[in-house]
Amino acid sequence: MADPQPLLRVPVQVEPPYEVLVGPGLLRQLPELVPAAQVAIITDSNIAPVHAEGLAGAFRQRGARCELLVVPPGEGSKSVTVWADLLERLAAAAFSRDCVVIGLGGGVITDLAGFVAASYLRGVAYVSVPTSLLGMVDAGVGGKTGLNLQAGKNLVGAFWQPRLVAIDVDTLVSLPQRQFRLGAAEFFKHALIDRPEQLALLGQDGLAQDAGPAALSRWLADNIAVKAGIVARDERENGVRAHLNFGHTLAHALEGASRHQLEHGEAVAYGVLFAALLGRARGLVDVVGQALQLVEFVQPQPLHDYPFDELTPFMARDKKNRSGVQRFVLLARLGQPVVVDDVTAAELGNAWRELRGLLEGTPWEAK
Amino acid sequence: MADPQPLLRVPVQVEPPYEVLVGPGLLRQLPELVPAAQVAIITDSNIAPVHAEGLAGAFRQRGARCELLVVPPGEGSKSVTVWADLLERLAAAAFSRDCVVIGLGGGVITDLAGFVAASYLRGVAYVSVPTSLLGMVDAGVGGKTGLNLQAGKNLVGAFWQPRLVAIDVDTLVSLPQRQFRLGAAEFFKHALIDRPEQLALLGQDGLAQDAGPAALSRWLADNIAVKAGIVARDERENGVRAHLNFGHTLAHALEGASRHQLEHGEAVAYGVLFAALLGRARGLVDVVGQALQLVEFVQPQPLHDYPFDELTPFMARDKKNRSGVQRFVLLARLGQPVVVDDVTAAELGNAWRELRGLLEGTPWEAK
Repeated sequence: MADPQPLLRVPVQVEPPYEVLVGPGLLRQLPELVPAAQVAIITDSNIAPVHAEGLAGAFRQRGARCELLVVPPGEGSKSVTVWADLLERLAAAAFSRDCVVIGLGGGVITDLAGFVAASYLRGVAYVSVPTSLLGMVDAGVGGKTGLNLQAGKNLVGAFWQPRLVAIDVDTLVSLPQRQFRLGAAEFFKHALIDRPEQLALLGQDGLAQDAGPAALSRWLADNIAVKAGIVARDERENGVRAHLNFGHTLAHALEGASRHQLEHGEAVAYGVLFAALLGRARGLVDVVGQALQLVEFVQPQPLHDYPFDELTPFMARDKKNRSGVQRFVLLARLGQPVVVDDVTAAELGNAWRELRGLLEGTPWEAK
Repeated sequence: MADPQPLLRVPVQVEPPYEVLVGPGLLRQLPELVPAAQVAIITDSNIAPVHAEGLAGAFRQRGARCELLVVPPGEGSKSVTVWADLLERLAAAAFSRDCVVIGLGGGVITDLAGFVAASYLRGVAYVSVPTSLLGMVDAGVGGKTGLNLQAGKNLVGAFWQPRLVAIDVDTLVSLPQRQFRLGAAEFFKHALIDRPEQLALLGQDGLAQDAGPAALSRWLADNIAVKAGIVARDERENGVRAHLNFGHTLAHALEGASRHQLEHGEAVAYGVLFAALLGRARGLVDVVGQALQLVEFVQPQPLHDYPFDELTPFMARDKKNRSGVQRFVLLARLGQPVVVDDVTAAELGNAWRELRGLLEGTPWEAK
């Protein structure tokens, strides 16, 4: 038998600090890593039979009481109703403050389970186990938890840091290919703002599900360190954490205008291209080529033919804005984001037209 | 015109620190003290016409956008449904992260509004304006927020410290007398655990609604300093904050067994007497006399004739317990609480019988 692949560790220097563990076979080690007497595993019905039922059994074998709480897959589970039902089930099981809540799944599950942990008995320990690429590089790390309201996505939640993030790269192998591509949008956003050398992974022999556990672990740990570093400097999104929002102003508007028909990763791919065009027009670094490569990598649904003024009200609601002033994250240089608050309506309109022009004749042409 | 009464200030040394301001006429000064552009006042329909509508008008006169959000009075408003509705209303008003949520009312309102502030957009600024004695000395100070579940009270919430607590003693004058008496239970609990000199206020010329603003302000500021000091040492209830739970183990059991027919202040009065009896039987300080005076002061509903084993399951669920071990707060000396974890079932049964015996022939005899 070969030596087991050593785990990679990414420290997150918040208070108290915690680690993101990255490697193959981590799920099997979880009961050892989380030695609690009461464990709740929150997951969805797609993931439950593949990963969660065995895990719950392993916890029980170690003598823990383990509740397996399964919710429907999809964004609809990030609701007040599903959240309240999970809390009632923890209370019915008489789980106490020293219990541990594990979120096992994609971004929907880690957002939901994180807020359950943040709010049950005014806060219990949370362990994040993201199983999608998007969850691994973004949602599962950094302490943002949230639910959707009628009025919009992620309007409710808490900053609640996990005690541990466990990333088992083996779970990527069984991830639907489309989900993998969607997660790549945030991966390469991190590359653009802080790891330009990872942009090479957009090309051949680059980021792929079958790249093998050693390469995937190394790439992921390196990419997650971008977010970990930013979160440590700005846990509650008062400053530098805005950099993670690169590409997200247009992305949120496209998600809103499409009533979330467009997936987050798809919207971010377009949003990164939009931000690249805004920056290039201002004489900042030109990353339009890489942004187009990202669109090709993600293979989003074609852009809908929105008149731009349908999108602007959504941008006005962006959480980065302060006292009515619209803020954008642009790239000053590769790996060097900057927040600007003087982008004009004319610049926005031009960038939108340019984006549409660039996609003409491609599979992403607006329809 | 006489000089205005100077405000008393109780610092709460958490991170970031804040102050509890105590004095008459504070409500009128609130728009100056809270210079925000977006203000939501959460209150109930009893308090709205008396205090909230004028306050909302004053905020608007200063140029703030002010949403007055009125919920039904009573414990029923500490529900997931009411909370979610308030969040939807903030979102519909497009309130941003720099808005301020004000909770204006008794403990129900400050618990509810505090959790709205803790969870809207992952946390916005909260200002607590308790208008009941209970809210002033307990619920409105210290950062605990919460909702009730089907399974029990306060099972959901967050620790979310206010930016400011404003206590206008003038609001006590219009408080129903019974509400004032109920609040006295927590006031004198603080006296027992940390301000023995305030026990004199159980007697004649003591704590009363018509004692005048100067005396009320002084007494309240002094009493609130007990909780402020404990909260500063243990913001998230991992240690010394358990001292505030003196009298609360039996109190929560009585509330649970009565399905909350017994009010919190009533249950605490009985709970303090129970803890006093437990302590005396162990040879600790004898505060049974003062505890009986407290019962007389609060004038609770008569005790229901529970067999003791109806109460024990509720005590087993107490949040102070760790890994199944039952913990009690007793008084070693006046003003000196101690947490014990070796109280036997026999001791509990004896204290219960003694309590029932002491109340025989009084208006509080078990029925």
